[in-house]
Amino acid sequence: MRLTSCGVIVEYNPFHNGHIYHLKEARKKSEADVLVAVMSGNFLQRGEPAIIDKWQRAETALHNGADLVIELPFAYAVQSADYFAKGGVKLLHSLNVESLCFGTDLTQSMDYELFGQTYVEKEKLINQRYQEIKNNGQSYPQQMTQIYRELLQQVPLDFSSPNHILGMAYAKENARYANPMSLIPITRQGSGYHDETIKSQEFSSATAIRQRVLEKDMTSISHTVPSETRDFLENTDLHSWEDYWPLLKYHLLNHSFEELSDTYQLSEGIEYRLKESVKKAASFSDFMSLVKTKRYTWTRLQRLATYLLLNVREKEIHDAWQNSYLRVLGFTEKGRQFLNQEKNHATLPIVTKIDQKNEKQLSLDIRAGQIYQLAQQHQHKEQDYYRSPIYLKGETSYESYTSYP
Amino acid sequence: MRLTSCGVIVEYNPFHNGHIYHLKEARKKSEADVLVAVMSGNFLQRGEPAIIDKWQRAETALHNGADLVIELPFAYAVQSADYFAKGGVKLLHSLNVESLCFGTDLTQSMDYELFGQTYVEKEKLINQRYQEIKNNGQSYPQQMTQIYRELLQQVPLDFSSPNHILGMAYAKENARYANPMSLIPITRQGSGYHDETIKSQEFSSATAIRQRVLEKDMTSISHTVPSETRDFLENTDLHSWEDYWPLLKYHLLNHSFEELSDTYQLSEGIEYRLKESVKKAASFSDFMSLVKTKRYTWTRLQRLATYLLLNVREKEIHDAWQNSYLRVLGFTEKGRQFLNQEKNHATLPIVTKIDQKNEKQLSLDIRAGQIYQLAQQHQHKEQDYYRSPIYLKGETSYESYTSYP
Repeated sequence: MRLTSCGVIVEYNPFHNGHIYHLKEARKKSEADVLVAVMSGNFLQRGEPAIIDKWQRAETALHNGADLVIELPFAYAVQSADYFAKGGVKLLHSLNVESLCFGTDLTQSMDYELFGQTYVEKEKLINQRYQEIKNNGQSYPQQMTQIYRELLQQVPLDFSSPNHILGMAYAKENARYANPMSLIPITRQGSGYHDETIKSQEFSSATAIRQRVLEKDMTSISHTVPSETRDFLENTDLHSWEDYWPLLKYHLLNHSFEELSDTYQLSEGIEYRLKESVKKAASFSDFMSLVKTKRYTWTRLQRLATYLLLNVREKEIHDAWQNSYLRVLGFTEKGRQFLNQEKNHATLPIVTKIDQKNEKQLSLDIRAGQIYQLAQQHQHKEQDYYRSPIYLKGETSYESYTSYP
Repeated sequence: MRLTSCGVIVEYNPFHNGHIYHLKEARKKSEADVLVAVMSGNFLQRGEPAIIDKWQRAETALHNGADLVIELPFAYAVQSADYFAKGGVKLLHSLNVESLCFGTDLTQSMDYELFGQTYVEKEKLINQRYQEIKNNGQSYPQQMTQIYRELLQQVPLDFSSPNHILGMAYAKENARYANPMSLIPITRQGSGYHDETIKSQEFSSATAIRQRVLEKDMTSISHTVPSETRDFLENTDLHSWEDYWPLLKYHLLNHSFEELSDTYQLSEGIEYRLKESVKKAASFSDFMSLVKTKRYTWTRLQRLATYLLLNVREKEIHDAWQNSYLRVLGFTEKGRQFLNQEKNHATLPIVTKIDQKNEKQLSLDIRAGQIYQLAQQHQHKEQDYYRSPIYLKGETSYESYTSYP
């Protein structure tokens, strides 16, 4: 009998109780047999290193409700919401997933599917309007709010909620496909996305949890995460931007303006500002504060810092978009059955190990993993070469599955 | 009355009693009023970071016999003997220095001036012969030995002695000038260049001293160095290649073959070997052992590693050769008088501080200083910006001299 599936697009930085709730709701509302998580790798949407690596986060997800974890390639993951969504939806579609379940902070109800269809219908008009106002001095979110207000009046205009923005991006992207997935929004429990306080109940935001963990305060977060996350946070080295500051500084000092200007998204002369600031800054946060202007959001600058850290070139991003793949990080028994079911139908190649045939195609993800390991004094664990998908056979044990499929 | 001068071309890594002997002999044999030391900066001829920085080494030299310390630019310093000599001789000539005093390990006596003249006369023939045999599979030293044996029969052929090789290089370069300096060879006391044992007497090689210091064994070397060197070695962080290994590794992982192939002296496909080895190596020495082949000497590979670490491009080296300068690191009162005497006669610009007018010209030295400071856990002391020459007024005290000349 054919297995049905529901997708989620996630970062799990780190995986916490809110994510368990999300997966449970996804299973319940979708009634799917299999939950497929498309997850960012070692660098994340907001341009920062993941606090623990992609394998640890994938393993935790498999222990707590996901059946299959696919890596969202760097070229889609470290991007604004629209490209992040484009990648996630593309990967799920390529695996013939029937529904997409996502969290939203929106308090009003909204028909995301209708929004997606309307958006795609009016896209030409929206783009035209954007060209007219793009130089009006306002930020991109402000400009889009104005355009949506004019052209898409039924949409709740809460651009302060990253989850709502992502939801809209999923809807827009999904509507471009001839056979779109059904969309299942779930109202978030507990804290808001950016909330930095730890709640007494079992739900706290990943932001709050990371902050406590980096302050070595494990006690106050232990009731908000599953045991696997707690173990990893307690027993492995944690990654934060400051660990990569010496490397970023070296890279910026070591390259001329001309060499730096080839970096993806580096434009408008900001390389001069970056090279001046790096001489003065004593830390990454110091550097960011020195570089920050009204023109750039913090997140956009952080993504730029990530592109610089990893020496990402425009061509690499475009090549990765043209040559997508399904990099399998792990699966349960049910996830394995689903992969077997879809392996001859998937419209993108399924990658379970890195070899000479695919290392060029995955080069950006591989490099991201190599640099991720370079943070000083960390246990250096190979991220891509010689790694096989995690295979979680039962409830609590798994073993490396080397002979897939 | 016009001050007469004698030059030395040095590295002082670190400055030791053998160097005091050298300076004393130079003063005695040359009868010059002023001793001018042209010294490598923070990276050295054999492609490695100096154990302590250029300012510390210059200060020690001024306390122990030198009157003026000029930095040998990176483009000349981190080079084979011929280019190292070319730079040193060029700088001394540009300051109208009358004699050049250098150490030699040679046990026979040799007329270096006659050798230089003969070499320059026969240069065309030597180059022609080299073109004929350069692909015979032998190393460059072996090939030159053969050519010298054929064409310059009066020269002692000891290519195992770095100091003799340098002496010949000085002589060759010096003979190209219409008014060459007089050459004063001094027989080295105590240890050979590469000798790793510490001698009971006051002379030990810099190699042996560095090795003991990096092993935290200060006791066994304290009688072989002046107090300034001892103080610096005991109280500041020491630099070795291993400190820069994480940065070199990052640079190699972070750049494509194509990007790396622009690096100065990187050719013949060695970039493939470098990129493969960096994945496996656990340390710099491990990396060097993996990369080493018969085709490359250790020193040549170490210089290549330095060019990679500092992202040195061919054009930068050639620009630096075309636009040489006299970067003053420090002087005694007599050195200051000599600089004043020569400032209108010098054929290269005298640089006493970095400003907007000269920072482009000195960019390679500035970058070398910036990267030199990046070694983890070191006291980060600015190497170029905001630094003024050391001015040693009396025997034992000095102050920063900010308003030269």
